[in-house]
Formats: sequence, C-alpha cells, structure tokens
Amino acid sequence: MPYASSGHPVASASKSESSSDLTLMEPNGIARPIRCKAAVCKAAGEPLETVEVEVAPPRAHEVRIRVVCTSLCHTDITFWRMKKDGLITFPCILGHEAVGVVESVGEDVEEVAVGDTVVPVFLAQCGECADCLSARSNLCSALPYRPGLMPRDGTTRFSLAATGEPVHHFLSVSSFAEYTVVDVAHVVRVGGALPPEKACLLSCGVATGVGAAWKVAAVEPGSTVAIFGLGAVGLAVAQGSKMRGATRIIGVDLNPDKFEIGKKLGITDFVNPNGIGEQTVSEVIKEMTGGAGADYCFECIGSVSVMAEAFKSSRMGWGKTVVLGVDGSAAPISIPSFDILRGRSVVGSFLGGIKPKDDIPVLAHKCLDKELELDEFITHQMGFDDINSAFDLLARGKCLRCIIWMDGAKQGNGA
Amino acid sequence: MPYASSGHPVASASKSESSSDLTLMEPNGIARPIRCKAAVCKAAGEPLETVEVEVAPPRAHEVRIRVVCTSLCHTDITFWRMKKDGLITFPCILGHEAVGVVESVGEDVEEVAVGDTVVPVFLAQCGECADCLSARSNLCSALPYRPGLMPRDGTTRFSLAATGEPVHHFLSVSSFAEYTVVDVAHVVRVGGALPPEKACLLSCGVATGVGAAWKVAAVEPGSTVAIFGLGAVGLAVAQGSKMRGATRIIGVDLNPDKFEIGKKLGITDFVNPNGIGEQTVSEVIKEMTGGAGADYCFECIGSVSVMAEAFKSSRMGWGKTVVLGVDGSAAPISIPSFDILRGRSVVGSFLGGIKPKDDIPVLAHKCLDKELELDEFITHQMGFDDINSAFDLLARGKCLRCIIWMDGAKQGNGA
Repeated sequence: MPYASSGHPVASASKSESSSDLTLMEPNGIARPIRCKAAVCKAAGEPLETVEVEVAPPRAHEVRIRVVCTSLCHTDITFWRMKKDGLITFPCILGHEAVGVVESVGEDVEEVAVGDTVVPVFLAQCGECADCLSARSNLCSALPYRPGLMPRDGTTRFSLAATGEPVHHFLSVSSFAEYTVVDVAHVVRVGGALPPEKACLLSCGVATGVGAAWKVAAVEPGSTVAIFGLGAVGLAVAQGSKMRGATRIIGVDLNPDKFEIGKKLGITDFVNPNGIGEQTVSEVIKEMTGGAGADYCFECIGSVSVMAEAFKSSRMGWGKTVVLGVDGSAAPISIPSFDILRGRSVVGSFLGGIKPKDDIPVLAHKCLDKELELDEFITHQMGFDDINSAFDLLARGKCLRCIIWMDGAKQGNGA
Repeated sequence: MPYASSGHPVASASKSESSSDLTLMEPNGIARPIRCKAAVCKAAGEPLETVEVEVAPPRAHEVRIRVVCTSLCHTDITFWRMKKDGLITFPCILGHEAVGVVESVGEDVEEVAVGDTVVPVFLAQCGECADCLSARSNLCSALPYRPGLMPRDGTTRFSLAATGEPVHHFLSVSSFAEYTVVDVAHVVRVGGALPPEKACLLSCGVATGVGAAWKVAAVEPGSTVAIFGLGAVGLAVAQGSKMRGATRIIGVDLNPDKFEIGKKLGITDFVNPNGIGEQTVSEVIKEMTGGAGADYCFECIGSVSVMAEAFKSSRMGWGKTVVLGVDGSAAPISIPSFDILRGRSVVGSFLGGIKPKDDIPVLAHKCLDKELELDEFITHQMGFDDINSAFDLLARGKCLRCIIWMDGAKQGNGA
C-alpha cells in the first residue's frame, strides 16, 4: 500500500488511480515534490532501510516516474557491496531494472508524456551524439555515466524526508523507490500491452543477455556457444543464442539446479566446475567440441579468472569471448598474448550492445509475439517491504529474477 | 653467385637459367637431392653460418622452390633470440618472407608447376577445412603450425651436407637457403609480372599490416587510427588505413626517423614516447582526439605493455585494438575489466587476417596497379653472404625491409 506522510504531498501508488491522480502538479502546472517510500542504502553491504524520502520535481529533460515494479539484478549487489570510492556514493537508492508510469515531466520533454508506461535504463540514448548516431556503439557520449547524480546538472532529486540529507541516485535509475526522477535520455516508452513484470526484465538483465548474443557476438546458425554463469543474463544469452540458431549451448555453473531451468531456455550441455576433477573448464569444453573450443564464449559472472577461462575455451581462428559481468574488484583480465594472435577476440559490452530506445521496443514486441519467453526468468515475486529478502535470495543463487511490486506482492511465492 | 660443391648435384641460382635447368630430375622423372648454400642458425642468438646443406626432393603435396630473394622480418629475430623449447628447434634455417620459382614438385601437386613464380607463406591454406571454408578465419586447421618440421609427415627435408645431421624448418618456409621445400598449402602463385623484391614483401610483413587494416579492423572512412611501432608492419597498417579512408593516422615510435618515412605512407601525426614528459602515450592520444581515443589501435611491436597502452588509447563505444606483434616472452596482456565493458574489443591476428591463396594475389594486383606502393619499404638490399648484416640492421631499427638476393646483391645500398 502507498506510504502516506501527513503534511506532505503523498503519492498514490495504486495501479487503478484515476487520470486526475496521475501527476502532482501545483495549480500553476509546476510539479510539486513528492514524499514517498524508498529503500535507502546507507553504507556498503548494509541492509536497505525503508524510509520516507522527498523526490523533487523533474527539471528540464527529466521525467518523474511512479515505479510499478522493479527487480533485483546482480549489478545492484556488486555495487551494494562495493567499498571503492567514486563508483557509488552513500546514502543512495539502488535498483536499475524497473517499469513505471510517467507522473510528471520537466521542461523540454517531448518524447514521453504523463501516463506513458516507460522502462528506465541505466544507459542513455540522447540520439544525437557520435555514439548514438553510430550503429557500432550503445554508449551515449553526451550523457556518460555520472555516479550518484543526475547526468546533466550533477545534482540529486532525492533527500531524506526526516533530515533533508541528500540521497544519491544509482545508475541513473534508482528504482527502489515509489517515485524516481530519470533523465529523458534514460527512459524508453514500451506501451502498456506487455505485463509490467516482463517489461521490467527488459530494463537490464534479459536485454543484456539477448543483446549480447544478437548484437555483440552476432551468433551464427550452427554455432557452439559456452556460457559462464547461468543467472538471468547467462540464461538470456542461451535464449538469444538459440533464437539465432546455435546448435550447441554449453552452460557452466556451480549450481546443478541451473541445468534444469537452463534446458528450458536452450542449454544443451552442462558443465559443473565442481564435477570435473582435475580438469579445467576450458579443457572440458575443448573435449566436448572435438578439440576446437566454442565459437562464442560469454562471461556472465564478473570474475576475471572466469573471463580468462572463457577466453581459453574459445576456438582458434574466430573464437569470440564476450565479457558481460562486472568484476567488483576492477581487476584486470589476463590474456596470453600468443593465444589472442590465433584469431581470437575479446569484446566487452554494457547492456549487450542494446541501444535502449531502438532495441528495447523490439524486444518488447518479441515478448508479445511469444518469440522471446520471459516466464522462466521470474522465479520470485514479493512486495516492496520485503526487498532485503530479494537481496538474500539472489546473493545465495536461489533466484533468477525477483519481481518487487511497489504496491505489495502480486504473488507471494518468494516472500 | 651460386655455391658449387663438386660431387653433388649443384643448383643454379642464376635468374637466367634455361628451362632445362629448372629442375633437377633423375632420368626417371624423380627429383634428386640438391646441395646448396643455406644460412643455418645453430643456437639461439648466434650468427647464422653459411654452409652447404642437402635439400631432399619434395614428397607428396610438397614443392621445392629455388629462392630468388628473401627478406628479414622481426619475427625471425624474435624466434632467433628465443630460448624457449618447443617453438623453435636448432639447428634450423630461418626466413619466412620470400619469393621463388618452383624447381620440382612432389606427388599430388596440381596447383603449381615447375617454373611457376610463388610466394611461400608461413600460414597454410588447404582450402578444405572448416577454417579455410569460413570467411572468418585464416588459420587452416588441417595444417596447424608444426614447429621445425614439414606439416604433414613431421620430418625435415634439410640436412647438413658435411655430417648428414638434420636441420629444422622454420615457420614452414625456411627461405634463408638457395632451395627450400614447402608444403603446397603454403605456396601462393603470384605470376612473374611483379618484381621479385615486391612479391617477397607480400609474403608476410606488408600483407600483415595491410590485411590488419582491411580485414581485421575493417577501418572505416574518416576514422582515427593509432599505430604502435612503425616497422614494416606498422607502416603497412598506415598505408592500408589510408587506403580505407582513415583521416588521422597517429604513429607511435621511439625512433624519430620513422616519422619522415611514415609521412610518405600515410602517418599524419607522430608521438615519440620519449618526448612526452610524464604523460603516457594513451593520455597524449586521448588529448589529440578530443578526449575520445582512437577508433582503431594496432600493436605492431610484440610487447604486452604496449598492447595494454594501445588498448587504453582506444575509444569507448567501439574502439578496437588489433594485436599483431608477437611477444617473445609469451607474457599475458593485462586489460582492465571495467574498461573492456565500455564497448571496446581486442582482437589478435596472424598475417592480418589474410587468407594467403585468396588475398595475396589481390595484393599483388594492387601493387601492379600502383594502388599499393612498396618502394618505401625496401630500405636495403644485399647479397646472401651478408645476411648477418641484415639481422644487425633490423635489430638496431635501421631498416624496414632488407631484400637479400640469393644470387648476390642486386643493389649495394645496404651492404
């Protein structure tokens, strides 16, 4: 239920609100601050605290969104644990996979309007810079990643209601709040036909995996693919690779439960690093492929040692290793120089090369057409108050995606 | 002049030999062993010794070639210095850039005939394996690199005339001999129209650089390119990049003399790592490119620290680092994992992705059409007896390519 705080404008988070409730505008048409519930992270690794925050109105080029549902991605956990300065600043509001409804817009926003269903995305797409104009890049150079702050003016729209202390943004999204403010370059209109829990998944994890197979690797029909780490990203790589006609999709994970769910999404062979004795994973993959290695290897964990093993598993001549995982220690990848000379390559990508505004609507369409199946990814659903349980489940490898409903649990299977 | 040894069949290396001299056949049509001069390397780093060797007749799928001229490539020096077991075996005959005339052929050779002008190449192209059939690879998987020996039967065709001791092959070519035996998968027919000293350069270095720009990087018009190391490979990258429409070509070399010759081949800007104070090369390149970095970076030295610096100089979003140099220590390349996630890639290649039999004739044609200019690469020419001087010149960075004429110096400018 919506969290009310008397004396402040209170947002309605019910999904049946009338159109007159859609925006909290002053009579002069200027949006007012909103006080609402947010799960604030005050220090690295500490449980989130659900508190009242004030969400300032959107400024020029900004959109305030009522979050409908959000989900937890491993990158939230990686940053949540991170003690490094610079990449994350506390207190902050985590969360970057979500879907919501535009509550109000700032000046110079024409692309979306109040009431639009939108997916906020951690990558911007201004549409005008050299990167946005090139098919080769999905890293908008006009609005690069600005840790903790709004990308254009470097300020924050969040503060603690109790003290006024500023609260930082996270990955330009901050979806662990009933309301958030996002730059319009970071929102994608997806239409209301797709169920929110599915639209939410297109915001990061599934888009990353499918995009990596489609756009970064450009998997060819008949290929052999090896996927290191069968979380949501890895399984989305499997699904994307299968859609591209890969005939052999080898999944690597320490958790044997992942093979069962993986089979449903295209995994044909499973390697458990704990079950291969003295052999290395790359040795096993080479054996499985007649000595050659895999055509495409995907690292979906964020471990530089796994990245090196993925590279070793790749085929001479054209083997491509796609790095998708974020190593929290920012350690370097080590690649034997003789081995890369043998026609191999390593390529990294955020969001699987997906250009948010161009490609996420295409993915949404494929979901509606049942070409892209997302049901298997949603293993848990719960209410916003239980968000710390979602951290626990994901950190223990017990869930793929936990959908967190801001207005309470739609389903209680993971609560 | 040809080296004669009475009592053995002696090869004529004169270029005006009559057709009856073309092959040393027994009356029954079987080729006989040839005794001729070769520059034998007996131990790592020691001067080559010009001695008489016996060159066995070509076996099935093999071709015996009278070498017309050869040139020295940095890879010869890298291996010559190498003390590691396995990659090179002494005594051996180095040399892998050459052009020659087919003197005799073994059984099952139909692709070339006695008298054909051919370029031997260290990479095979069988034409039938998965790699040869794919446009993505130039690493024949039917005949992979087999250090020191003939690729099919793992024996040698060379022995010391004095003792009969076997002498090993090198990179499947061994061109520092008046005659050599090469597998037919390693020879490319180039026709006689191109001057031998130019055909010779297409055998490795120039093909590698031009191929890297054309095939591996696929440099786009208007691009910025950074080239680390302005030897023959690096300067061929410059020429290839210019032909592809790159507008800014930054050359990096410790030797300021390289800028003058580089300008003739397309280099527009020069960075001398010794002349930039406390800055790193990647910092300078970023400054030169408005903070972005280069679209394509080529490592043409064979130093893992330079490979890392090349990577750092590459642009976020789509920057591609192409590794062409062979690091003799086989050390690993270290790549910050956060940085590769930002849309960058690293790709390695032997011979610049060139498929010998498909692409070298195309390059030869471009030379005849003056589209590809090779004159600047030939800085020295000398006779076979002076081969150790060529090692000295190249090791000291005093030459790009030294053409070594087997029948004596065509020109004496480097002798």
